[in-house]
Amino acid sequence: MVAMGGGHGLSATLQALRHITEAITAVVTVADDGGSSGRLREQFDILPPGDLRMALAALCEDTSWGHQWSAVLQHRFRGHGELGGHALGNLLITALWDLIPDQQVRGLDLVGRLLNTRGRVLPMSLVPLDIEASVLVPDDMGEGAEIIVRGQSRVARHSGKVETVRLTPQAPPACPEALESIKLADFVVLGPGSWFTSVMPHLLVPELLRALRDTPASRILTLNVSLTDDEASGYTVAEHVHAVVNHAPGLTFDHVIADPQVVRTDAERAALEAAVEQLGAALVVTTVAKMGAPGVHDTLRLAAAFRDIMAVTR
Amino acid sequence: MVAMGGGHGLSATLQALRHITEAITAVVTVADDGGSSGRLREQFDILPPGDLRMALAALCEDTSWGHQWSAVLQHRFRGHGELGGHALGNLLITALWDLIPDQQVRGLDLVGRLLNTRGRVLPMSLVPLDIEASVLVPDDMGEGAEIIVRGQSRVARHSGKVETVRLTPQAPPACPEALESIKLADFVVLGPGSWFTSVMPHLLVPELLRALRDTPASRILTLNVSLTDDEASGYTVAEHVHAVVNHAPGLTFDHVIADPQVVRTDAERAALEAAVEQLGAALVVTTVAKMGAPGVHDTLRLAAAFRDIMAVTR
Repeated sequence: MVAMGGGHGLSATLQALRHITEAITAVVTVADDGGSSGRLREQFDILPPGDLRMALAALCEDTSWGHQWSAVLQHRFRGHGELGGHALGNLLITALWDLIPDQQVRGLDLVGRLLNTRGRVLPMSLVPLDIEASVLVPDDMGEGAEIIVRGQSRVARHSGKVETVRLTPQAPPACPEALESIKLADFVVLGPGSWFTSVMPHLLVPELLRALRDTPASRILTLNVSLTDDEASGYTVAEHVHAVVNHAPGLTFDHVIADPQVVRTDAERAALEAAVEQLGAALVVTTVAKMGAPGVHDTLRLAAAFRDIMAVTR
Repeated sequence: MVAMGGGHGLSATLQALRHITEAITAVVTVADDGGSSGRLREQFDILPPGDLRMALAALCEDTSWGHQWSAVLQHRFRGHGELGGHALGNLLITALWDLIPDQQVRGLDLVGRLLNTRGRVLPMSLVPLDIEASVLVPDDMGEGAEIIVRGQSRVARHSGKVETVRLTPQAPPACPEALESIKLADFVVLGPGSWFTSVMPHLLVPELLRALRDTPASRILTLNVSLTDDEASGYTVAEHVHAVVNHAPGLTFDHVIADPQVVRTDAERAALEAAVEQLGAALVVTTVAKMGAPGVHDTLRLAAAFRDIMAVTR
């Protein structure tokens, strides 16, 4: 089972999948340029470790030992000194890459072994990537003007509507082990997450897109449960699905999971159904949001949705 | 079994003791003010973690998993950036202390659990300490002048002969768990290590000295196998023993372990025997140095020396 994405969205998927299987491979975006990851990336000329760390933390053992490790990995040093803001897990990954240079996958596998994580965490590419977005912002006349925003952290924070994203370098090589895992998977899950900075980037790595198209695996697209993220404000889930169609022409999915709260009106529902049809997918509307936590997927409900889809598909 | 000291010396003792028992408590000096430890100590107002980290690394599992963790803990980031010079293990300890503030012992116990270390690592005091030394340096007339050197890292590097060391604060409270472990121990081992900055400091914590005097445990003093360390240059092992007598009046030992290479001449041997007699101890001269590695104790030979002494004493 392969889960593709980054950040909290991927973390939610991984935590849900753990209820179903131990054979999980996370394929993680490596375009972050902000915060602790940005500093480490610049300082050591490495892949940004932040999204990889979050995936590892999500796959820590489900024991008190594993929970403690997860909390330690996620812990950020306080203050504004040289360590301030760094997550310990980022430093652990960086140390392993420092110990075994030029072997990022072996380094991550070793971190996984040291932490006794379930599954495997892989970067989507072995070169650090940058994101560039065409963003539609209202101009003085109240009409839309398109501007270019560069850097994942700036795209994620920018107001306005992201039209398209591109990667720099434009056609980066995929991580070979990630391609292999997609080829051998029964199920591949894309999303949820920051749509244009954590989910779309995978579709822009040509080899990954080809592997996704070619795999015999069943493909599942998990939509966000809230659309209030900065970068996605103003979007509907139907437009998110259109973004997939636009960024990955010809890629089809088998199932698209949506929470009822993102299709409250008949019009919203019809728009999503039409969009999902373009992906060749069946729409599964089921409660996967966490009660009382807007924007967050509920681990057990998401696990149930995956399990039901997988039971039908097998 | 309690081992007291710091740095590489304590690490050697711990690695040797592991061949004999799993019931090991390391009581570690906390006066370091240089390098990674010094920076962390200043930035977060914490105990310097470096000697604690080395002890934890020495107590990692004797499996490939444990050896990998040990290497990762000891790994220092390269470069001169914000992370340059920091040992990963120092950052791990700092993160745990950050997560559970004001509970240094619990934090260290948790690090030990996360790493599955054997035994326990305790700081000798719960307050960061500073070292001040009276050092005899040759003056212009070729005679000795006494100067005061402050800070462990400067004392360790200073040329000249250390006469006495003092702690700031002068009579720091001991770590209660360290006192308890000494009280309950069968054997307490002091040294080897940087004599004035890693070994003598323990004797200057009044409660620790009292616990050492009062314990029914058998006390073993392990002398250095080389006297070429900066801070000890010009010293003989007999003078090292005198330093113990001077810094801890009234404290007796049961056994003193010396390598033959530090008592090459009859005069050296006689001087050491006379000094050891002042400690009330039996002198055990046996090869404990590592072949081809000057100044380093051999783990298995040191383990054999401990085992033989313990067999006689029990």
